[in-house]
Amino acid sequence: MARMIRPLANLYEQLRRLPGIGSKTAMRLAYHVIDMPAEDVKQLAAALSGAKEQIHYCSRCFNLTDSDVCEICRDSSRDSFTICVVEQPQDIAAMERSHGYHGLYHVLHGVLSPLDGIGPEKLRIRELLLRLQQESVSEIIIATNSDVEGEATATYLAQLLKPVGITVSRIAHGLPMGGDLEYADEITLSKALENRRTM
Amino acid sequence: MARMIRPLANLYEQLRRLPGIGSKTAMRLAYHVIDMPAEDVKQLAAALSGAKEQIHYCSRCFNLTDSDVCEICRDSSRDSFTICVVEQPQDIAAMERSHGYHGLYHVLHGVLSPLDGIGPEKLRIRELLLRLQQESVSEIIIATNSDVEGEATATYLAQLLKPVGITVSRIAHGLPMGGDLEYADEITLSKALENRRTM
Repeated sequence: MARMIRPLANLYEQLRRLPGIGSKTAMRLAYHVIDMPAEDVKQLAAALSGAKEQIHYCSRCFNLTDSDVCEICRDSSRDSFTICVVEQPQDIAAMERSHGYHGLYHVLHGVLSPLDGIGPEKLRIRELLLRLQQESVSEIIIATNSDVEGEATATYLAQLLKPVGITVSRIAHGLPMGGDLEYADEITLSKALENRRTM
Repeated sequence: MARMIRPLANLYEQLRRLPGIGSKTAMRLAYHVIDMPAEDVKQLAAALSGAKEQIHYCSRCFNLTDSDVCEICRDSSRDSFTICVVEQPQDIAAMERSHGYHGLYHVLHGVLSPLDGIGPEKLRIRELLLRLQQESVSEIIIATNSDVEGEATATYLAQLLKPVGITVSRIAHGLPMGGDLEYADEITLSKALENRRTM
């Protein structure tokens, strides 16, 4: 082919825009789609449109949901006095997989990043403060990532929330369980020393 | 989330079925789609359906096309006396990129693979024989891959086509251009020796 036929080129361009999909993968996927049964392609296209149309943010905690309020906020057996603040809905999924937390969540949908023009007003911080007025919360656990932006966001939130008179905590950082001391990076190791506990 | 919400789980399952997309990539892509602008998701879904609906096989050479006959078969400036036989439409794209071939093609859509139940009747071999009756062809270049199935298919085709009285050739195998002798694998090197040419 001197040039790719239009529908193929179009599909390639669209796939190419997805994160982590390079030009070779996009091309391989495009040819695969053409070889797929028509019914399967229809289902894939419908799954894409369906996910985008039906999923939105929980009006209370901004987790992903297909109803007004998400499953976790609706679950009356959960401890509603504790809110865990995370960056993204994916982080809730990770926390839930640990089975170690039974409170509620609040999704910021990002982190403070002045260089990218993301200030506090672009995150769901105002909505968090509003929740603290409306709900009786005794502890906020900040579970943003431990990179520069995540730490800055945690510090910002702690300073903002302390005057409200609520316990603000940060998830612990240290050596991962089962991890070898020998292979731990320096920052994790110094953090693990700093956060040592008496036995 | 105790369990994933349905539209997200559905999208994840669909993405998971694509080749080379593992569970982590599928999950990352699913969350990305939910974050994409609605218009972009619509375009991606339309590109998938569009490619599947509009692309079919060229009635002459079984290349991919969105018309009845593909661009290459329609191009009267090409040498119609030579047919290059390839496994997949992707192989035509690779050949065209080399700018070294100006004849026509024929796509088998597979290779002989008795273990997978793929015999000659499942490939476009009957259609190739039909073309030889209808068109005036002087040479068939077999450009199937150089793996076991590709070689077996090439041998089968050569035996089938020789009685027809047409020159049957096989693309050369040897050291890749710019490749170091030191790093060539044994099979390529012995093939390169076997196919040596007097200078």
